[in-house]
Amino acid sequence: MRDRLPKASKLYIALLHYPVINKDGKVVATAIANMDVHDIARLAKTYGVETFYLINPIEAQRKLASQIIDHWRKGYGATHNPFRKDAFEKVEIKSDLSEVVEEIRALNHCKPQIIVTGANFQGELLSCRGLREAIKSNYLPYLLIFGTGSGIADEIVNQADHRLESIRGKDGYNHLAVRSAVAVILDRIVDTT
Amino acid sequence: MRDRLPKASKLYIALLHYPVINKDGKVVATAIANMDVHDIARLAKTYGVETFYLINPIEAQRKLASQIIDHWRKGYGATHNPFRKDAFEKVEIKSDLSEVVEEIRALNHCKPQIIVTGANFQGELLSCRGLREAIKSNYLPYLLIFGTGSGIADEIVNQADHRLESIRGKDGYNHLAVRSAVAVILDRIVDTT
Repeated sequence: MRDRLPKASKLYIALLHYPVINKDGKVVATAIANMDVHDIARLAKTYGVETFYLINPIEAQRKLASQIIDHWRKGYGATHNPFRKDAFEKVEIKSDLSEVVEEIRALNHCKPQIIVTGANFQGELLSCRGLREAIKSNYLPYLLIFGTGSGIADEIVNQADHRLESIRGKDGYNHLAVRSAVAVILDRIVDTT
Repeated sequence: MRDRLPKASKLYIALLHYPVINKDGKVVATAIANMDVHDIARLAKTYGVETFYLINPIEAQRKLASQIIDHWRKGYGATHNPFRKDAFEKVEIKSDLSEVVEEIRALNHCKPQIIVTGANFQGELLSCRGLREAIKSNYLPYLLIFGTGSGIADEIVNQADHRLESIRGKDGYNHLAVRSAVAVILDRIVDTT
């Protein structure tokens, strides 16, 4: 059995479009932003993420995202910009989080450690340094979830294994684009040396 | 004189739209991307950057950027999203790099240390750790320049005081969005503790 174990942890990321909260704290579904797909796919490729899951419950949204992805993987985009093609190979579209968790479990014969991110977490949090060490020192799959809108809804946060420490700026300003948060957090938790 | 010295280094960033190179290595001027302005303004606010300079030699481009900025500083955007207003207060538009350098020199009575960034630098480079320590331990103004297109043209790179180490991914992939590079580098060089 031993030689069937992976050589290191596998890191998966997901961008959640439902359930997330809006500015007023209501649970909503958000639209997929083209720039999120591009920037986060390139980050996933840079930092050796296994798969970048786009999660959206609305079929028309998934179809639109699928067309964008196909353009860069197989259409004119693939010849126009082969580096973008490489990045888009990382992207998968799913309709809900449970599908993602099931896929990772099936691929790894092991439930992933689920880690949620957010700009306003308080209390007991996993540090980026702690997560970096954990990823390097064990063999579990990790799923890191980023929320669109104003963040991941409580029902998902409360089910997670860990909440990751929030990015703290200099003057308490914590309103980064989710694309920027993915960049900062991947750079903090992935050892590229 | 001593009490007129600033208490710590001041960090300025610039997004250069000319002179930069395109995919074929030719020197070109690029267009201002709305998402760059939003994401980098929010990063500048988060990481305590003094000013985020948008540099573009084309008047129509500067006018368009100015309209976007005014919308978020003074127009409907300012009441709709006050956090975005705070971020946009950091943005200034200039027509060329020498204007930016002169403004920083006038404000600080001292020429800024000019540091260029790029995805493919080789040779003797300033490390992010080294820059972080320098910013913490001296009183010079620093200007960190990010290029659009395929990167900053040689004529600017060759005039800089330092070239910053490139962001290295896991498998040699180095095709991040400039927005993502700004996020990673500011997080590496600014001490927010």
